[in-house]
Amino acid sequence: MDEKSMGYGLVEAGCLVVDKGRIAWVGPEADLPVSYAAAPRHDLGGRLVTPGLIDCHTHVVFGGDRAREFEMRLEGADYEEIARAGGGILSTVRATRAASEDDLDETALPRVDALLAEGVTTLEIKSGYGLELETELRMLRAARRIGRERKVSVVTTWLAAHALPPEYAEDRAGYLRDVVIAGMERAHDEGLIDAVDGFCEGIAFSPEEMAQIFDRAAALGLPVKLHAEQLSDLGGAVMAAQHHALSVDHLEYLGADGIAAMAASGTVAVLLPGAFYTLRETQAPPVAALRAAGVPIALATDCNPGTSPLTSLLLTMNMGATLFRMMPSDCLSGITRNAARALGLADRGVIAPGLRADLAIWDVTHPAELSYRIGFNPLHARIYGGEIV
Amino acid sequence: MDEKSMGYGLVEAGCLVVDKGRIAWVGPEADLPVSYAAAPRHDLGGRLVTPGLIDCHTHVVFGGDRAREFEMRLEGADYEEIARAGGGILSTVRATRAASEDDLDETALPRVDALLAEGVTTLEIKSGYGLELETELRMLRAARRIGRERKVSVVTTWLAAHALPPEYAEDRAGYLRDVVIAGMERAHDEGLIDAVDGFCEGIAFSPEEMAQIFDRAAALGLPVKLHAEQLSDLGGAVMAAQHHALSVDHLEYLGADGIAAMAASGTVAVLLPGAFYTLRETQAPPVAALRAAGVPIALATDCNPGTSPLTSLLLTMNMGATLFRMMPSDCLSGITRNAARALGLADRGVIAPGLRADLAIWDVTHPAELSYRIGFNPLHARIYGGEIV
Ligand SMILES: [Zn+2]
Ligand SMILES: [Zn+2]
Repeated sequence: MDEKSMGYGLVEAGCLVVDKGRIAWVGPEADLPVSYAAAPRHDLGGRLVTPGLIDCHTHVVFGGDRAREFEMRLEGADYEEIARAGGGILSTVRATRAASEDDLDETALPRVDALLAEGVTTLEIKSGYGLELETELRMLRAARRIGRERKVSVVTTWLAAHALPPEYAEDRAGYLRDVVIAGMERAHDEGLIDAVDGFCEGIAFSPEEMAQIFDRAAALGLPVKLHAEQLSDLGGAVMAAQHHALSVDHLEYLGADGIAAMAASGTVAVLLPGAFYTLRETQAPPVAALRAAGVPIALATDCNPGTSPLTSLLLTMNMGATLFRMMPSDCLSGITRNAARALGLADRGVIAPGLRADLAIWDVTHPAELSYRIGFNPLHARIYGGEIV
Repeated sequence: MDEKSMGYGLVEAGCLVVDKGRIAWVGPEADLPVSYAAAPRHDLGGRLVTPGLIDCHTHVVFGGDRAREFEMRLEGADYEEIARAGGGILSTVRATRAASEDDLDETALPRVDALLAEGVTTLEIKSGYGLELETELRMLRAARRIGRERKVSVVTTWLAAHALPPEYAEDRAGYLRDVVIAGMERAHDEGLIDAVDGFCEGIAFSPEEMAQIFDRAAALGLPVKLHAEQLSDLGGAVMAAQHHALSVDHLEYLGADGIAAMAASGTVAVLLPGAFYTLRETQAPPVAALRAAGVPIALATDCNPGTSPLTSLLLTMNMGATLFRMMPSDCLSGITRNAARALGLADRGVIAPGLRADLAIWDVTHPAELSYRIGFNPLHARIYGGEIV
């Protein structure tokens, strides 16, 4: 995972110099400059070193639980029965509105810790279960707090355009104006947001509605990204690429125009196999066409209570390989190099001089094992900013 | 998970008495007999207690690694190229033959430890990667050793009828006589086998061949089980049921006659969603028909290097629910009550007086969470024979 290679860029019998939290040098041990000869050494025993993992798309902060809804569905309940029993996304919205910042923090931490235990060093967290101003802000305050409580970089995303809350059912424009855009401005003032996202789908917001939000984000200097083409092709990816989106995410129904637009704008395709698996989708995203067009592909957990209650990036890699037929080397760049790019972070995601010393050290003999195994964690150590954590 | 209920049999505000490694009493705390009033108490803080988990079908002892083969397939190599590069089951056979008992033990332990970390207290381990007498015996010696090295009950299975080795390609009868049956007798003499299994499939052994082996197993007093109807319906399940098999495993292509025969013989259907997932099968086993016929359903990892490199029973539950549409309560009985039955063990798998105190204690608020979450381990403690381990 260096800056140039397409594959693993594996260095055998390698050596890596860390200085003041940054990577100072990397290469074959035999080539180590003499200037580092006297530095203290750690022998990693022939283990594999990769960049620290980056989960670039999560909804890991939320209130409540949807396990009983999952069960009711399998017991044969239909959507109306589940809605009557208080299920669906609005159950998460209700529970999140009722949760304090402490509650949100406490319930998210075990999920975050599961990710960290597999070598995650950078984690994106979205708002989007408040659908009203104060709760959206509270979600992001909890997200920022996680970044202070744990040795992990947290990147926050404003996702008030996740669903239309019932109180605005007759006033879409009012919701966009009073909550999505007004809240974005307020959150930006408070330093709570690093990027702006939305759910572009028939059941959520249109490309035109999202374009309004993105124009306002651009005026604030905030980068944008979009959930698009998950269940249908509405043209969200083309619109997002025109707005120079960092990433477009899901993409099962992405068409040739979307691929071309993303290639032209350098937008990353973030694929979310956990949601594909949980929803038992049959149409996989166009991996081969994205790859052929040179669109960088990232993978993420999409950790959320409704459609991807997944807290393992290693399992996400296996799903990328098994369900989307991605090569293991692409799965690894998908949770390192390209995931960093999806977050607009140029200081991490590869192992190269000058970048952050965020690293994962693995008890494996070949990097393909990280994608191949299912439900096994071979992490030996996690290094965050040069520190073993 | 008591002896009577179909569902969870959940006891709210429950209490459980353990005495000399056995469950002495279980019920609502309010009903605790006064005779136990003076016993030392552990408050589990409202956590969920289930039977210790049972993985009733694994190939967890083997030599070598198949990660690069997994990668080559995704890079576009066809089966011939993989075979030329030394891949496929025969690569595992070669590596297993070359491995010492120490090697087999050392490489299996991290896989076993991953299972134990999720609350497994009983583990089945098969031979089947030696395909010659000494290696088959060595695999089972390594399996027995794992049962001494870890706090887990290991149940061993003779699976020499896993594949035909190249040296017997022209002499199927000779393999069955000299290795499968002669080895079974020798392993039985050494106390190495608890049951006898085989792979009944076009690419392996026919029902008639397996029947010969099963007749000999019956003469030795050994129970039998079978890998059957995974890729086609050869009638293996009917034959196995006629031989009073403990279980028939895989069963994607099981027909109505097989279901009826298994129901009549009380044979457990062991479903293996990890292999279904890895092989990207599309025909799921007939879960609803098995359930309607009263066939007990178990779930297992099938942990093996070729078709299910899976070391998580919790993920197996999620796959049972997501891929096979099993209810979470059936997923839980599938790795406790019915898994014990698949191994012929009447002293575990449920929480009832007189049974072994093999228990798992979970940080969850509802048992459905165990099936709902993906890649998360909420185990609080594992109890093996009454001891916190
Ligand atoms: Zn999402
Ligand atoms: Zn098997």
